[in-house]
Amino acid sequence: METQAKETAQAPVITPESLLDHWQGHRRLTRKVIEAFPEDQFFSYSIGGMRPFSELVREMLELADLGIEGIVTGQWKSGLDHSFQDPNHPTKVEVLRQWDRVTEKMNNLWPQIPPHRFGENDTAFGQYDGTVISFILYFIDNEIHHRAQGYVYLRSLNIEPPFFWERE
Amino acid sequence: METQAKETAQAPVITPESLLDHWQGHRRLTRKVIEAFPEDQFFSYSIGGMRPFSELVREMLELADLGIEGIVTGQWKSGLDHSFQDPNHPTKVEVLRQWDRVTEKMNNLWPQIPPHRFGENDTAFGQYDGTVISFILYFIDNEIHHRAQGYVYLRSLNIEPPFFWERE
Repeated sequence: METQAKETAQAPVITPESLLDHWQGHRRLTRKVIEAFPEDQFFSYSIGGMRPFSELVREMLELADLGIEGIVTGQWKSGLDHSFQDPNHPTKVEVLRQWDRVTEKMNNLWPQIPPHRFGENDTAFGQYDGTVISFILYFIDNEIHHRAQGYVYLRSLNIEPPFFWERE
Repeated sequence: METQAKETAQAPVITPESLLDHWQGHRRLTRKVIEAFPEDQFFSYSIGGMRPFSELVREMLELADLGIEGIVTGQWKSGLDHSFQDPNHPTKVEVLRQWDRVTEKMNNLWPQIPPHRFGENDTAFGQYDGTVISFILYFIDNEIHHRAQGYVYLRSLNIEPPFFWERE
């Protein structure tokens, strides 16, 4: 690494490729946290009036799914068409299937992001002004944040969550 | 931005400067979460057998304080010399003072990191192998993760935490 790096203030601390890798590593961990939840509690368990983990996962899924599309196309669609709290909510297996669909979609679309796009200004989901890179960091941070709520839910249910540093 | 960016796979998605900014933004939010805790509960409140928020803050402080030093010098010191759970633990005000000291230390040392250093392999705290950039991302992610536990503690104490997107 050392000999290849350019000694300028613009040195690539994080490249597009390593950023996708970082995001997908976090998503692999979140997937394990979903798996760790009992079916019932995934959709119902809550502390302090916060949303159940299923709703937090729905938000992460939506940000990744429609987010990667918005990043690539500049077209931002609005949210998924139903809450996971509906009487007809999907099973955990179905949520995991959606998770995997979005994983593949991200891997397929990511290479289509032209490098200059990361620094471009846009309005994510028609509401949030910022650069594309700021959106991506926000999506990742938001997932870490809400996933950690899931960790507390699991602990208080006496279930051991996966190690935080597991990203394989 | 667009016209300046180089259209190569090595385009600087995140520069050293923007990365420090991102980290300090998160640290400003964590500082607000510390402030939001009542003095007592900061040191004692827990859910599901997890550590009180003070201990999580101690970990964040240590990683930032000794982490930035290790990154710049290649010398990794071991942990702070006392737990915040000691009978003589510091007050919240003293913890905030330490927080601000580390903020300044980071701002002072960061510009001394040569750009090639981010991609270098090292062993953080004598135990964790990886690149320097992977350590920095881990420190940030770890802070987001543990801070989110603090959010759940606050909610279950019926205290409104600061907005997640507040980074000023």
